[in-house]
Amino acid sequence: MSSTTDLDASDPLAHFREQFVHNLDEPGLIYLDGNSLGRLPKRSALAAANLINDQWGNRLIRSWNEGWFEIPNRVGDLIGKLIGAHAGEVVLADNTSVCLFKGAVAALKAQPGRTEILTDDMNFPSDIQILRSAAECMGPEYTVKIIRTDGISGSLDSVRNHLGDQTALVSLSQVAYKSGWLWDLSDVCKLAKNSGALTLWDLSHSVGAVPIDLTAAEADLAVGCTYKYLNGGPGAPAFIYVSQNNNLFSNPISGWYGTENPFQFDFEAQPAAGAGGFITGTPPILSSALVASGAEITLEAGIEKIRAKSIALTQRFIELVNEHLVSYGFQVASPLDSTNRGSHVSLFHPEAQAVGQALIHEESVIPDFRPPDLLRFGFTPLYTRYADVDDTIERLKRVSENGAISRWRHVNPLIP
Amino acid sequence: MSSTTDLDASDPLAHFREQFVHNLDEPGLIYLDGNSLGRLPKRSALAAANLINDQWGNRLIRSWNEGWFEIPNRVGDLIGKLIGAHAGEVVLADNTSVCLFKGAVAALKAQPGRTEILTDDMNFPSDIQILRSAAECMGPEYTVKIIRTDGISGSLDSVRNHLGDQTALVSLSQVAYKSGWLWDLSDVCKLAKNSGALTLWDLSHSVGAVPIDLTAAEADLAVGCTYKYLNGGPGAPAFIYVSQNNNLFSNPISGWYGTENPFQFDFEAQPAAGAGGFITGTPPILSSALVASGAEITLEAGIEKIRAKSIALTQRFIELVNEHLVSYGFQVASPLDSTNRGSHVSLFHPEAQAVGQALIHEESVIPDFRPPDLLRFGFTPLYTRYADVDDTIERLKRVSENGAISRWRHVNPLIP
Repeated sequence: MSSTTDLDASDPLAHFREQFVHNLDEPGLIYLDGNSLGRLPKRSALAAANLINDQWGNRLIRSWNEGWFEIPNRVGDLIGKLIGAHAGEVVLADNTSVCLFKGAVAALKAQPGRTEILTDDMNFPSDIQILRSAAECMGPEYTVKIIRTDGISGSLDSVRNHLGDQTALVSLSQVAYKSGWLWDLSDVCKLAKNSGALTLWDLSHSVGAVPIDLTAAEADLAVGCTYKYLNGGPGAPAFIYVSQNNNLFSNPISGWYGTENPFQFDFEAQPAAGAGGFITGTPPILSSALVASGAEITLEAGIEKIRAKSIALTQRFIELVNEHLVSYGFQVASPLDSTNRGSHVSLFHPEAQAVGQALIHEESVIPDFRPPDLLRFGFTPLYTRYADVDDTIERLKRVSENGAISRWRHVNPLIP
Repeated sequence: MSSTTDLDASDPLAHFREQFVHNLDEPGLIYLDGNSLGRLPKRSALAAANLINDQWGNRLIRSWNEGWFEIPNRVGDLIGKLIGAHAGEVVLADNTSVCLFKGAVAALKAQPGRTEILTDDMNFPSDIQILRSAAECMGPEYTVKIIRTDGISGSLDSVRNHLGDQTALVSLSQVAYKSGWLWDLSDVCKLAKNSGALTLWDLSHSVGAVPIDLTAAEADLAVGCTYKYLNGGPGAPAFIYVSQNNNLFSNPISGWYGTENPFQFDFEAQPAAGAGGFITGTPPILSSALVASGAEITLEAGIEKIRAKSIALTQRFIELVNEHLVSYGFQVASPLDSTNRGSHVSLFHPEAQAVGQALIHEESVIPDFRPPDLLRFGFTPLYTRYADVDDTIERLKRVSENGAISRWRHVNPLIP
């Protein structure tokens, strides 16, 4: 195994770490939760000060004419470049769940006579709840079929077996939030299309971490989150992709911002063309505008380089866990083959929550906990060093040996 | 008519003007568009710097445990105090249009057998579009009936005449975005209730400007905007009120953030109690957190004092328009009786758009234009002086006399 000093020295992405804010009071902090909330880009801090003090404070309403109005489309197009979309196929809007609802209802309406949504149990709980809400909105004959998995890996065969002539829509998370399982977009889209079903992807845990080409895959719809690998800021708006090849889709929550000419204030106004028609109301400008910096940095770094480093980091972590931590009760709960893995690795441990608290409070490592017994370690290539991988292993070993786990056994934070 | 010097000197709210940022480069600016985008509270600028640099930049994901998670409920409760709600009846979520969709569908589902939504043509176009989307989500038998008005005033008789045993829901803007017509909440709620209909109010142009008591009025549901009189910032999230007396309502777009225990990641999770169940996905934290400052300032000033000054400002403006501007083609297009008027006044002018541009670019007065022929002047008592009213009249007179209108006749800004 190469030395981390060599790997970090030759890392073509190493200098991107300086694009982000690192707290000087916590120099030893290893932040492995960028898959939940990405770090603050320095240029976002600058942009925010300008947005608030000048654009809001001084220019006031005039700022709508000086760039605000186009933010959902402009930032959407930036993200579009990361996911193989054409200009106009992606906009920022709402949050992932509301976008998913819009996409799912739009898809179901475009598939008269078919009444089933197919998903799996590795999908984010909110996605499953939302798909059920979409089915309920459509009527009592609509159902959501949930493929049961082992919680770690999906299988194309299983998708094939569950597809039928009632399947209107296949909706999956490209990277599973727990195990990090990574679907091959093209394979699933092909299966769905052959069966007459549409596809609606949740790219929350893949965008900015994995190369994505929705056009090549012939995906119909997609949504995703901007505050994970895109570093857009806490709760930053989601994006929605609507393929230009499918003009069957219309926004089921049609509102003024998504019409052709919002400032005519005409309630008979027609929806805007493309993904723009899927915007409903006024977007949160501060939270939306800052998504641009994160997306720009990702484009500058290049998704292929990000992916290569992500594989190297996660692979190294898995190997070291297997070598040093199995005897302490840890087990890798993510796909071992990098072809099928996103940029995070989950570890099973019977006391995962206490281990997580011990890491945070005694060792300055931030992973996250997913009940009942998983710790997730997100490796964000833009600001995670190879040395961080080895240091994390070291610290995991230390909390396993020095009694820290028992010290944190009975602490129940609000957010575990 | 009293002198503005005396009025400003004795104004109990005068010192609140200093709570807001005023651009030193534009000392003569008169900002009369606070009903579209409220000014930046100085404490929001401070809060934003802390939110971004410390909470996001340094504390990272830990901030979810250090206050972020409760923001929608905490800020919702602040707003609740301004609208006569109990704790837990109001949350921040989405934008006004998406909240309205949720409220409308929830109301329709609670009224089996009734298939009609009643609204009027003074309602914001997005509201009418959204009510139609809600009806469409429910099924082909659902309809939206739009009461036709003269565009300036509503009438209770007209509501009474349109209510029937098919009316499931009455949904109106408490203050009409164009004319400023102000409905009496209690009167309309009483009519609706007597007819077996539920009520869903849009408080966007009334919250922070008009005393509101949803509990006393026995309103069922309400939504509203936080970036107008509440000064929450551009596109800041909306709020939704769900009466605790009506537990029939459930969120039709049910997502993880609105469940009882979001961090269990259980897709069978039940909705949270109260308005909390109407949150769907992760809220935009930056845009949400800043709403607190604006709501706090409004509570500190006191809504009764705000309303008294609002009436005085708008009444003075109307009187001066009638005295000095009618001969230049201006006509008041708002209710003359302050009992039925919110905090803005619309003026008709055949060249309203050019007048607006001339005011902005030559006279440093910012109103807004509503096509085809209205200018809106919003009087926000927290930072508008009596002197601003008289100065605006003076400047309107000047652009009418000095040829400015013809200079701006052919300018068509993106946002008119």
